[in-house]
Amino acid sequence: MQAMTRKLHLNLFINGRGHHEAAWRHPAATPRALTDLAYYRELALKAEAAKLDSIFFADHLALADDLDHAARGELEPLTLIAALAASTRHIGLIATASTSYGEPFNLARQFASLDHLSGGRVGWNIVTSWMAAAAANFGRTGQDTQAERYARADEFVAVARALWNSWAPDAVRDDRAGGIYARRDGVRAIAHHGPHFDVEGPLNVPRSPQGRPLLVQAGSSEDGRRFAARHADAVFTAHLSKQSATAFYGDLKKQAGAFGRPPEQIVVLPGLSAAIGSTETEARRVLEELNALAHPSVGLERLKNRFGGHDFSHLPLDHPLTVDDLPDPKAVEASRSRAEAIVAHVAATRPTLRQLLASLAGARGHFTMAGTPEQIADLMIDWFEGGAADGFNIMPPVLPDQFDRFADNVLPLLRRRGLFREEYEEETLRARYGLPPVPISPSPSGSPCPPRADGVQFSRGEAAVGA
Amino acid sequence: MQAMTRKLHLNLFINGRGHHEAAWRHPAATPRALTDLAYYRELALKAEAAKLDSIFFADHLALADDLDHAARGELEPLTLIAALAASTRHIGLIATASTSYGEPFNLARQFASLDHLSGGRVGWNIVTSWMAAAAANFGRTGQDTQAERYARADEFVAVARALWNSWAPDAVRDDRAGGIYARRDGVRAIAHHGPHFDVEGPLNVPRSPQGRPLLVQAGSSEDGRRFAARHADAVFTAHLSKQSATAFYGDLKKQAGAFGRPPEQIVVLPGLSAAIGSTETEARRVLEELNALAHPSVGLERLKNRFGGHDFSHLPLDHPLTVDDLPDPKAVEASRSRAEAIVAHVAATRPTLRQLLASLAGARGHFTMAGTPEQIADLMIDWFEGGAADGFNIMPPVLPDQFDRFADNVLPLLRRRGLFREEYEEETLRARYGLPPVPISPSPSGSPCPPRADGVQFSRGEAAVGA
Repeated sequence: MQAMTRKLHLNLFINGRGHHEAAWRHPAATPRALTDLAYYRELALKAEAAKLDSIFFADHLALADDLDHAARGELEPLTLIAALAASTRHIGLIATASTSYGEPFNLARQFASLDHLSGGRVGWNIVTSWMAAAAANFGRTGQDTQAERYARADEFVAVARALWNSWAPDAVRDDRAGGIYARRDGVRAIAHHGPHFDVEGPLNVPRSPQGRPLLVQAGSSEDGRRFAARHADAVFTAHLSKQSATAFYGDLKKQAGAFGRPPEQIVVLPGLSAAIGSTETEARRVLEELNALAHPSVGLERLKNRFGGHDFSHLPLDHPLTVDDLPDPKAVEASRSRAEAIVAHVAATRPTLRQLLASLAGARGHFTMAGTPEQIADLMIDWFEGGAADGFNIMPPVLPDQFDRFADNVLPLLRRRGLFREEYEEETLRARYGLPPVPISPSPSGSPCPPRADGVQFSRGEAAVGA
Repeated sequence: MQAMTRKLHLNLFINGRGHHEAAWRHPAATPRALTDLAYYRELALKAEAAKLDSIFFADHLALADDLDHAARGELEPLTLIAALAASTRHIGLIATASTSYGEPFNLARQFASLDHLSGGRVGWNIVTSWMAAAAANFGRTGQDTQAERYARADEFVAVARALWNSWAPDAVRDDRAGGIYARRDGVRAIAHHGPHFDVEGPLNVPRSPQGRPLLVQAGSSEDGRRFAARHADAVFTAHLSKQSATAFYGDLKKQAGAFGRPPEQIVVLPGLSAAIGSTETEARRVLEELNALAHPSVGLERLKNRFGGHDFSHLPLDHPLTVDDLPDPKAVEASRSRAEAIVAHVAATRPTLRQLLASLAGARGHFTMAGTPEQIADLMIDWFEGGAADGFNIMPPVLPDQFDRFADNVLPLLRRRGLFREEYEEETLRARYGLPPVPISPSPSGSPCPPRADGVQFSRGEAAVGA
């Protein structure tokens, strides 16, 4: 499955009209509405023409308050990638869905269905939800602790994996002449009974082309890493420096090893939000234009949410910050890893609040830079060869313009170095990410599979990790 | 909105390889797998070429046991219609989703998203779930009573309607120069607190082209009718005789009137499963072929489920039945209206169990017939003009063959009589069904809307019905 030379994996993270919080106002941003399928189809086709591994949509379970000055209110990601599955042929399609409120049966079957609809191109970015506003849309009064959220997530994913495994690959016979549609013994109940869920199963969707969606994880806290090391095929992660990315990369591969997983079977993709210009000056000007269009209230609300509701609005915008101005991230029951990265950044660089907001406006705590195509490519290669990345989560500050620049000017440099594919070669998203097929295990949380008369072997390989 | 002459509304109900339970084995059925998007796309495009109002997919929340002899395990309907939204331009897309287990916030935003993706062509067939096997996939041990199920459904739909109304149509300003993305006062919390749900809102998807999906209902019991009269824009209903369909039609229009709704604003579509042949003999042969391919165990399991788990397998297949062989439908906490129809049919015709199973094998209790195109068209016109139907839920026994015959041979007869459209005229599915636009009401369950400076009026018309 894996190419002879190690190659980059590249995912396009599509976020409104771009990742900069003021992108929606920029003249180079799409003229289309955020709810217009034609816009996302156009981007998906561009990413497919550029031979990227996949595209990805985040999700939110509540509307943020900063509606006046930030572009909010978007399409729901599962229905959106279903529509894009019908409009594309090769590109992987990854959508975020939370484990904090829904039912695993319904989400598992929506993803199984998406995997069928896309011919094995779908991925699930598994998140836990920490915003109080989201909880209030699902009948919850308080926020769960991070440990509680990950405990539910662990069980949620175990149930989903068992459901995806509840059909053997050859269960559907479709023998019209003989009148046998399916082998009943190739489809099994999962009979899951746990602290959060009781799910009898089996799934009511036959086994999908990939066996299950590619599993992606994006939380980088201690609990998030353990969860990723156990479950994730790929990891989206946010770092403000190569040093932080390298430490994370090494730690995650080691933790995956502790679960008996080969390190190359967890693909690490740090976020990269690059403003690209034909000169460095031109590139910087794009970021300056965007920062000039940003409204401080948007950044202040985001910072507040990052620190679990802590208010920063009393601080002067132009006074250098110290770590004492920020709450202890250990006490943050929200997106803790992002809070930790912000505190480390403040300790290292002593920015003013205005400067901090500008540095986070670009990509919400992901690595941002401005440079020429050569500078961008050099950085990517440095991280890729220096143990910080297996590829990147590409987060253009303005869409589609900055992705066009990336595809037209950066990708050729990576290809010249033999580090990125010229053509699509693999059928499924898993195979494209260099991952082996999902082991066949029809009842990972049920009883062991009895020997079969027709000689097909059920492996229990995945069950040890997943169930 | 409404055409000068009253015209038929026609929906294609797509069920696997056809509605007859043995359709999957029939030589005229599609060669494609039930999980193949290309098959559904082909059917959707055929229905669109025939200028039908809409296509529709049912849903199941558990896998039935009769997997050996019946084609089971299909795509999840919301993801499927999202993919079809991208593949079609005009046809309406209706999907079933249950109110019995999920969260209204997530379902409301998936439907809002689908309405955007399809440009205002989406419909929600609202069902309550009565199968014990479904309950066991969602952590429930017992079955809810019918009254409990409809109480939850009422509140679920009220929450969803309030969420769809939480954005005013003009809330998104997208003023790039002025830096104002949305009018905060055009987006309101719903602050719903009820016995089943606590949902703060607003929705995180802007108001969709139709305002909300077309609301469809398919249960015909007493509780189901009351629910339909209150909420439904269109009703799918199953009748084994014109007499029963006429009584239902009259009752439903009357009940809708009691909620202050004009009778033409609830569109009644009885199911029609017609085997079409160029002669009556040829048509009958299709049904005979299908019945010969059916396996009694499939029908026995379905009958058992219809009567809430009552076992019929001890009865001889070739003995005439009496109503004493069937449980009292009043005691059935499952699909009660179907049970009632079956008891009435047994009382009227005294079939053997084998004959009863054959009569239900065609379309699960919907009206079935075999005939020439002229005979089918005559029956449709008779029901349409005789107060039994505003159109039909077309349920071909074998797909795509029997739909091709309907489109090629029956539709021209209806068109010749001026009873069916030649071309699409309306933009949205609501308009196509002759329904007025959804009233603008941004906070139906919240406080009354204050007068607005810019003079746009918020009507509270829908709130009286929906909230």
